[in-house]
This record gives sequence, structure tokens and C-alpha cells, in this order.
Amino acid sequence: MGRVKLTVAYDGTAYSGWQIQPNAVTVEGVLTDALSRLLQEPVALLGASRTDAGVHALGNVAAFDTEHPIPPEKIAYAVNAYLPDDIRVMRSEAVAPDFHPRFDCYEKCYEYRITIGAFASPLTRLYAHHQRRPLDVAAMEQAAQAFVGTHDFSSFCSAGAQVQDKVRTISSLHVQELERLAEDGEDGGSLVAIRVVGNGFLYNMVRILAGTLMQVGNHERRPEEMSAVLEAKDRRKAGPTAPAKGLRLCYIRYGEEKSHNK
Amino acid sequence: MGRVKLTVAYDGTAYSGWQIQPNAVTVEGVLTDALSRLLQEPVALLGASRTDAGVHALGNVAAFDTEHPIPPEKIAYAVNAYLPDDIRVMRSEAVAPDFHPRFDCYEKCYEYRITIGAFASPLTRLYAHHQRRPLDVAAMEQAAQAFVGTHDFSSFCSAGAQVQDKVRTISSLHVQELERLAEDGEDGGSLVAIRVVGNGFLYNMVRILAGTLMQVGNHERRPEEMSAVLEAKDRRKAGPTAPAKGLRLCYIRYGEEKSHNK
Repeated sequence: MGRVKLTVAYDGTAYSGWQIQPNAVTVEGVLTDALSRLLQEPVALLGASRTDAGVHALGNVAAFDTEHPIPPEKIAYAVNAYLPDDIRVMRSEAVAPDFHPRFDCYEKCYEYRITIGAFASPLTRLYAHHQRRPLDVAAMEQAAQAFVGTHDFSSFCSAGAQVQDKVRTISSLHVQELERLAEDGEDGGSLVAIRVVGNGFLYNMVRILAGTLMQVGNHERRPEEMSAVLEAKDRRKAGPTAPAKGLRLCYIRYGEEKSHNK
Repeated sequence: MGRVKLTVAYDGTAYSGWQIQPNAVTVEGVLTDALSRLLQEPVALLGASRTDAGVHALGNVAAFDTEHPIPPEKIAYAVNAYLPDDIRVMRSEAVAPDFHPRFDCYEKCYEYRITIGAFASPLTRLYAHHQRRPLDVAAMEQAAQAFVGTHDFSSFCSAGAQVQDKVRTISSLHVQELERLAEDGEDGGSLVAIRVVGNGFLYNMVRILAGTLMQVGNHERRPEEMSAVLEAKDRRKAGPTAPAKGLRLCYIRYGEEKSHNK
């Protein structure tokens, strides 16, 4: 065989994030163990996105090399039997031997969800940040457009990030009310989603964008201030890092040449 | 004070259903304990709907009598501090002394959710039934219309039900594809919702309706057979009882005269 690409979904609630670390249960750790047991050989995963503790994913991507004769597209079915139901390999496929989940991706999409209402609904409590006061979604959408394009996002990068180059390109950033949560039209409640697509994101960048846009939605900042926050290149000028559970990694896209049907 | 109405939402995953029973953790039990601790007096709840183990609710309704001086509308805020986050009192209000959550309701709405795709998504695994093969939603919608109106639903009532009168009225029953789950348009996956509104439901009636409609969606039965299933008044003629976790009680409606602002 050769290199196999995995599309991985998980409920991040129970995990200390993606990346393997000592004395913690991580998605990468549990997935590595499951693959090693299935294939009866040591497995080393290359990951695309090191999501933080509590962050969810619909389509994170990992890859590994194996000599096992199992058809690559069957690995998803087989390994899911070794995984807890809060981690699912949604797809497995052969890729080029030099495919790298992190370096070869050209587009990532994240969504940040906020529920609004008197109380957090038990059915969405683990998958959205909650606040009581309504958000001014139109103001958030207006503010969001300042971030679209190629910018130095130093103001939106947590300390501890190791990368030097803080320039990233956001191709799309929208804020919208997704659905009514309360179905009797009486107890109110709505779901606001911040959806961002870009070529890559700095450490905590989406959560800091979300925290800043929520300040706009709460009328603590004006949409017109966003350009100055970007230009300051200073983490202290942006808003707080929004809580992890509201964030989900939706998908990661790759060019056709390396990532399919090799 | 007097009688207080509570609108209660819960994630049924961790509970042996609504109704208090020995040696089991139930929603009614946990809620009764929390109210008793808050009000420092014994509380006896009247419940509207005794949902089964694993069934969820956005708006089940309960009522109780109290002499405590706390304003009724503040009870929701106060009691939530005593409740785990998978149970929330979404609203509390004073009602007439003879208000009864079960006998006074004129409309209930349930929804049954089914996710379709190769694997169950970790983010919806607890709140929907999952199957791999696509459902013929149009055939399900056609079949569903046979149940709308006033009928004897004996074929859709599990054994053990104590009621004699099996006649109920369904005012609305629709099957629709709610949203795409996979956001990359590649891994597929969709969410089918069966939404039913009626004046009351027999034991397991919605889950048996869902199980029967899924047989239609899987082309194991034709929509035209539904009238005969109803007319048979025989549980064995209907489909299986669909799994509990796909079911959610959405809301219960009451007349204005007893249930508001007394």
C-alpha cells in the first residue's frame, strides 16, 4: 500500500484537543491506537489541524503510511469498529506518497455557533456558545467584511504561536441566523453562525475573530473599528478568545493531483 | 402562591425517561429534587408527557403547587442553578389552580430525526437515528397523509398501554429533508425529519409511525398500504418502534384561559 488520507469527524467535548500529549486523552491518540490495533502495526499520523480541547470537527484530515493489504477505502469501515462513537472516520482513500494534510491544503472552513435565549438548550449546549442578549447580526456581517482578503492577522493570533508569517487570506466570512431553536415561537431563541473560509488560520484566529465579532454584535464595538484592529497587529486590540465548544472545523480542501485516487 | 407551570427541555441521553421510578435516574426525579432543594419544601410534579428513556424534549411541561414567596417567573432562573446542564427549565409562570399539564393540553408536536450517510456523525449521534441508505422522502410524505385526521390508532400503540380509547387526531404530519449535514458536498449525508402535530399520542405512537414511515422510505412498504394498517387496528400490522434517541418532544400547547398569567 502507501499513504492513506482520513477524513475525521469528532465531538471534541471529551478530548484534550487533537494533538497527542502526555497524560491526556486526545483525538489523535485515540485514532492512532485504533489504527494500530486494526492494522497490527505502529501508525504515525500526519494531522491537518491541531484543534484545541473542546473544539469539534466534521472533516479534519489526517494521513499515514501503511503496508497492510486492506483496501484503503475500507479502512474507514474497519477502524470505526475500534473507535468510540464520538470519533468517526467518515472517509478513507489512497493518496500520493508525498500528500501532506497540513501543507497541501488550499482551503479550510470553520464555523462558530452562538445560541441566543434565556437559557442554553440542553440539545445544543455542547456544540454552541450561549448568550442571553440578542446579537446584531447585520452589524457583525458588516464588521466581518473588513477581514476578507489578504491581511496580517497578528491581532488575531494568541501568544505562543510559533509561526513567523502572520499573513493569511480569508476568502469568505459571513454571519447569519441559521435556524430558530424554539419551535413553539414563544420561548424565543436563535442560532447565529459565523462561517469563515480561508487558506489557513493562525493559533486561535477563528475564536478571536468570533470573540471580536460578538463584541460588535453586542454593540461594545462598531463595525468601522475592525480595520484599525487589523492594522494594529496587536493581540490586545482584538476581542477575547471565544469559548472552544462553539467552534467546528467543517472541511479542508486539497488539490486534485495529490489527494485523490492514487 | 399557587400552581406553577414549567416548560422543561432536556437531553434524554442520560435518563431513564421522564417518570420517577425506583433505582433509576429520571428527569422528573432530578427536577423534583432540584425544586425541593430550592423551595425547601416537598414538591410533587404533574407531568404532561412521560417520555421514554433516551427521548429528548425542547418543551415538555410540568406543574406543581407551592407556598414559597418567590415570584413564579423567577423559578426558572433559580432552579437551573440546581440542575445539571442536560435539563433546563426554559420558562416558569403562574397558572390557574386547576391547570393540569396532561389533561388541559390541546396540541402536542413531536419530531423524529433520521440522519443518512455512510457513518453517523459524532455531532448528531445522540439526537437522531442513523441509517446508511437514502430514504425516499416523497414516498414517506405521501404515506404520512393517510394518518392525518381522526383515526383509531390501535395499530400504532405498544402493548402495555392502559388507555381504552385509541382514537386520536393528527392535524399535521410532514416528512422533509431538513439540512445537509456534510458541508463539503463530498461526504454526503442529510437529515430527514418527521414532524407530527396532534391532540394527543398513544404509548410509542410517534416512534411506531416513524418506524412504519421509514419502511416506506426504504421501499419495504408502499404508501398505499397505510390505510389498511390503520384499519387493521393491530400492532403487528405496523412497522417497528423506531429507536428512542431520534425522538424529541418539541412543544405542548394549552388554551389561554388556564395556562397564562394567573
